[in-house]
Parts: sequence; structure tokens; C-alpha cells
Amino acid sequence: MAVRASDCIVIGGGVMGCALALRLAQAGASVLVLEKALPGAEASSAAAGILAAQEEAREPGPLFELGLASRARFPAFAAELRELVGIDVAYRRTGVLAACVDDAGLVALEARFAWQRAAGQRVVTLSADEARVLEPGLGPRIHGALSFPDDAQLEPRAYARALSLAAARAGVTFVTGAWVTRVLDEGERVAGVLAGGERYLAPSVVVAAGSWSSLVDGAGLAPHAVRPLRGQIVELETRPPAVCGTIVSPRGGYVVGRADGRVLCGSTMEEAGWDKVVTAGGMAHVLEVALELVPGLAAAPVTASWANFRPATLDALPLIGPAALAGLFVATGHFRNGILLSAITAELVRDLVLGRTPEFDLTPFAVGRATAASAHKNTGVR
Amino acid sequence: MAVRASDCIVIGGGVMGCALALRLAQAGASVLVLEKALPGAEASSAAAGILAAQEEAREPGPLFELGLASRARFPAFAAELRELVGIDVAYRRTGVLAACVDDAGLVALEARFAWQRAAGQRVVTLSADEARVLEPGLGPRIHGALSFPDDAQLEPRAYARALSLAAARAGVTFVTGAWVTRVLDEGERVAGVLAGGERYLAPSVVVAAGSWSSLVDGAGLAPHAVRPLRGQIVELETRPPAVCGTIVSPRGGYVVGRADGRVLCGSTMEEAGWDKVVTAGGMAHVLEVALELVPGLAAAPVTASWANFRPATLDALPLIGPAALAGLFVATGHFRNGILLSAITAELVRDLVLGRTPEFDLTPFAVGRATAASAHKNTGVR
Repeated sequence: MAVRASDCIVIGGGVMGCALALRLAQAGASVLVLEKALPGAEASSAAAGILAAQEEAREPGPLFELGLASRARFPAFAAELRELVGIDVAYRRTGVLAACVDDAGLVALEARFAWQRAAGQRVVTLSADEARVLEPGLGPRIHGALSFPDDAQLEPRAYARALSLAAARAGVTFVTGAWVTRVLDEGERVAGVLAGGERYLAPSVVVAAGSWSSLVDGAGLAPHAVRPLRGQIVELETRPPAVCGTIVSPRGGYVVGRADGRVLCGSTMEEAGWDKVVTAGGMAHVLEVALELVPGLAAAPVTASWANFRPATLDALPLIGPAALAGLFVATGHFRNGILLSAITAELVRDLVLGRTPEFDLTPFAVGRATAASAHKNTGVR
Repeated sequence: MAVRASDCIVIGGGVMGCALALRLAQAGASVLVLEKALPGAEASSAAAGILAAQEEAREPGPLFELGLASRARFPAFAAELRELVGIDVAYRRTGVLAACVDDAGLVALEARFAWQRAAGQRVVTLSADEARVLEPGLGPRIHGALSFPDDAQLEPRAYARALSLAAARAGVTFVTGAWVTRVLDEGERVAGVLAGGERYLAPSVVVAAGSWSSLVDGAGLAPHAVRPLRGQIVELETRPPAVCGTIVSPRGGYVVGRADGRVLCGSTMEEAGWDKVVTAGGMAHVLEVALELVPGLAAAPVTASWANFRPATLDALPLIGPAALAGLFVATGHFRNGILLSAITAELVRDLVLGRTPEFDLTPFAVGRATAASAHKNTGVR
């Protein structure tokens, strides 16, 4: 039984797929989202929600520009979602502090981010005392920090929920429990997808399946083009709130303070297949990092812990653009920045699907570098 | 409405109260257990279940003797419970290893336990290689260990459940959700208790309320005679089992391996009132201890975590014996050894209630040292 019910099928109901579906529906397209679990069930709900376009960037270039452009959209996007479905995604421009434990660390941080200041972005060097004005709980080992006052945060679970509700309200159809195993073609063109033995037909298909994207047969992605990189988070409760914004440790890892006093302690970076568990070592690591940053967290109750997967690519750049089949597109591989990049990715891929020219040059994110045909060139990069 | 339904009221349905109720019922008494939550809901289910009569002992004396006598009862008691209610409490004589990280540590351990060997107990000194024969997962920092091959373990939750079922099957009545606020008297004699506005009458009453014992008005215990000492445990899953028995760290803390591969990582010792939470600092501590003992646990999934309270007394000895009112008895304050001591305590207090002479001299555990009247003498000890 084949049903041509939509102009576009989106594979994956995470923030990427839902934001795209919303934008497509707002542009008048009929959209079907096929989601293997529930909308937002995976990385979208597991993320810390740090919108760190600056602190996450390691070099100038297209990813940095994409992040800044997407970060700039969030105040309006959050307001739009509140308007559409009444959900506050808790967007807050709390800034991000990159902490260090000695002078050398501060010099290294400054050198690492000098290019951002040169590019006109705000980066502020803080002594330990100055940093403690922003984060009074900073531990005695913290020697100074770089502040990125324009980086922000939101609540990924609220955001994922708002996006799926807004998309549904805009007319998007969701099928949950539908694991897409294959992309169907008509010669050079995409024809639809196969999920749970059902054929869903549409002239456009977008792969937005995060860490599971490479598993979609027929999409043309190499087996390891997108691979799961596990991250673990432990959530604490503090009252009054012990952490104001986001503090990043020189050892990697971070704490994120929510307005209500919850503190997220993250995260690990692990190759563990799809083994979605919190481990003793992961939990010990994120707690150790958190307690060095803010020792006062020691008495805070542990209220939750979870693990999920960042969709990582071989070169750490997302895959955004047309795939080998006409009408087939990819929006995946956003690695550590899926929440941040979802706002702009949705607009860019909407334009691709609708045959418009996206306002951003997508050449650096081209899918060609991650296809089975190109795989032999890239494996050394991993 | 007063109901004289029983010969004896037991306040508290933990392992202490249930084991006692079972023994009383087996001796022909009608028994009523009043439990504020559910049987075994508190420390009884939170304990690690280490039956460390030797490793826990710090000096010769009555507590050591009591622990040995109780430990010796467990093989038969476990068999009896399996017979009575079909529950295997997973009693296993896995031994306890006290690990050290250098030569000095091993010498100190040997000196600390020389008196046990002199007393005829088995204590074996092991090199690191010998210790690794018993526990192949021991980390590189472990330099040697003392082995207590006769110490054992069981599953406290299975044990608590078996005790309450066996007691019920022997005719004991349980009232759950019943918080006893007051002991009632008739002049010099106990008359019953008050719980939830109800009067329960009996000629004998036993306070077996663990950390909550001092809250029972009219029992004559000083306000801090028994106080809650928080312990936190993190449970991991390993397969194949990564820890065979119990390994105690020189920093305090331990890991306990179950037959099915679960590993319990414990524990903290904290004054935190009745704040029954797992904290960031507590979790970090027990994981750090566990990972130093057995580094391979790092990859093990965290399956659960919990906190509860040891009932601690001012001098770390339990309170077992008659109280000020005739017919009123106390069986509480077993601190770190409630599971271990429950078997013998039940027999001793049964004998007291029934007017028999207990087979153990209870003078060292006399309640008089913890009464309101004696409190001024003891506060300095705390």
C-alpha cells in the first residue's frame, strides 16, 4: 500500500527534522516526519542546550559563521515558538565562561580565541575575581576565564517538544515508531522511503536521522559517514541556583546552570557504538570536572543522569545539502552543535527542498565528502 | 478505639523488627509490627549486605563477639528462610579483602588485625599477586591485602523481604503507614503505643525503629541517642562479573560483587539529618574509590543509586536491652552492622521479651547509657 501523502518526507523527528518540517509546512509544503521512537527522543532531549557558537569554535571559517548566524536567530525563534505553541524554551543569553587553572592556561585561551576578537566578536578576559562576579561558586583552583557573553543556552527538551508541536500544528504529519530502512528511487530521482514494510512516497526526502543516518540504505552515505559519539550528563539540583550560566573546564566538560537551580554536568566523548548507558567512569569524570569548577556542588542532590549520541562526521563538519539522488537531501552530522545549528539548518534545507537558493554557501558542508564513493579518501581523517 | 491484639508490639519493620517478630511468633507470641512505610523500606534495603564481623571490628570485645556469633548463624538462617518462604537471600561466604596501596599500609593492616589472629580467627596476608588470584580486577595501585575469608555477604532486599514474609506467615500482623509517635504507659509498665491517632495495646513493646528510634516519645531515649548517618551507594552492572567478593579501600569505601555481576560501590559517612539524597560529592567519592580498586569498572553501566541512614549511637555500640519502663525493650543503633547483627539480636530480644535469660551478656549494649537521664554524660563522646 503506497500513499503519496506529502510533498516531502523527513527521516527523523529530532530538533533538526522537526525544525525543518515546521519551516517547510510554513512555506506551504505538506510534510511527513517518520520517527523511529518519539519526536525528540534521542540526542535532542539529551543535549545540554549550550548555544556556544563562539566557545565551541576552534577556527574561523564556514562552521563558525553558520553557528553565529544560527545563534542570532534564537531570540526570535524562541519568541515564535512561544507564540505558536505556548512553550517557553528557556532561551537565555547567560554567556559561556571558559575557565583555566593557571596563567599559562589563560594565555593559551586568549591566543586560541584572538581571531574571534579580530573578527569583531565579543571575548572578554577575566581574572579569577572578575570571573567570580559572574559565577560566585567558582572553585579555588580556577585562575581566570575567557567570557563569551553572547553565547547562550536553552532547554533542549522544551525546544524539541515545542518544535514537534509547532510542526504538527502547522500541518505536519508524524508517524512514530517508524524506522526508515531504505530510500526508494525512480532511476535518478528519489521516490520515497520504506519503513516497517510500508512504502511512503514523496518527491523529496530529507535524511535528518542524527547518529542513525548512515544506517538508511539507499541514501548514499558511507557506513561511518555519521557515527555515534556518546556523551553522558549528570543533573543536579541546587537551591539557590549554584551556577548562573555555562562554565567550561580546561579538561573538557562543563556545568550549565538553569534558572530553576538545576545544574547539568557534562560530558564525555566516547566511541561506544550505540550503547546508550551511563557508566561508572563517565559519571565519575563529569562529577570530578563539575566539582573542580564549583566545589559547592558536592552537597547537591543527583536528580538524573543520561547518555546519548552526538552525530559525528569524519571531519567534524555537518552534512547539509543535496545527496546523489535528485530530490534527496541530508541534514545531519551536527556533532556537538545540533541544537545551535538547528535554527539555520531548517531554513537552508527548506530552501533546498523548495528549489530556492539558500542564503548560505553550503559547499563546505556538501554531502559528497561523506558518500560511499568518497569514503576511501576520508577514512584516514578519522 | 483500643485493641489489645497482641502480646508484643514491634516498632519498625526493618530487618531488626521483622527478624525479632519472626522469632517471637515462632515462640508462640502474637506480634504486631508497626511500620511507618513498608517493611524493609529504609536502611534494610539500602545496605550493601556485607557480613563483615571481622573486617569491621576494630578491637576485641563484646561487639566483635556479637558479630561473630551472628555471622555464624547466617548459613542456617538463610536455609531456614528459603524453607519458610522460598526466597534465596543470596548468602555467600565470598570473604572480604582489605586492600592497601603500599608496604606501610599492609603493615598497618596486619598490626590492626593481629589480635584477631591471636583470637583464633582467620586473617590471611596477601601480596598483590595473591590478592589478584581472588580479585583479578584489582587495579595497579593495589599493593596487597588482608583477606578475611570467613566474612560473607547477602542481598539485603531479598533478606528484608524474606523476613517480613516469613514473619507474616508465622502469624505476625503488620500495619504499614503507621508512624509510632508515643509509647503509652501504665505507671511503671508499658501499655502500648500511639500511631496515627490509634492506640495499640500490648504488655511488651520493642523499639526497633533504626535511625528514627530517638523520635519515639516516651521510649526514654535521649534526642540524639540514635542519629542518622547517611550512606550513599551506586550500583553498576558488569558481565562477566568484575568483582568476586567485597573489597575495602584504604580510604574507606568498598565494592561488593554479586553473583549476577552487579557491583555495589559504597559508601559515604555523612551527618546530613534525614536528607535522603544521592549527592554529586557522594557519588563522585564512591565511584572514585571503586575505580581505584577495580579500574575496569569504568565501562560498567550505572544502573541505580540510593542513599539511606545508618542508625548511629554515641559510642558506636548498639542499644539492645530493657528500657526504663517494664515491658519496654530496645533493639536499635546497629550502625554499620544492622544486617550482620539482625540474626542474633532477634534471638536475644525475643528472650528478653519472653522473660528468658539471653545467652549473651547484654550489659555492654545496655540502653541506660543512651537515655535522656544519662545524655549529659555522653555528649562529649559524640
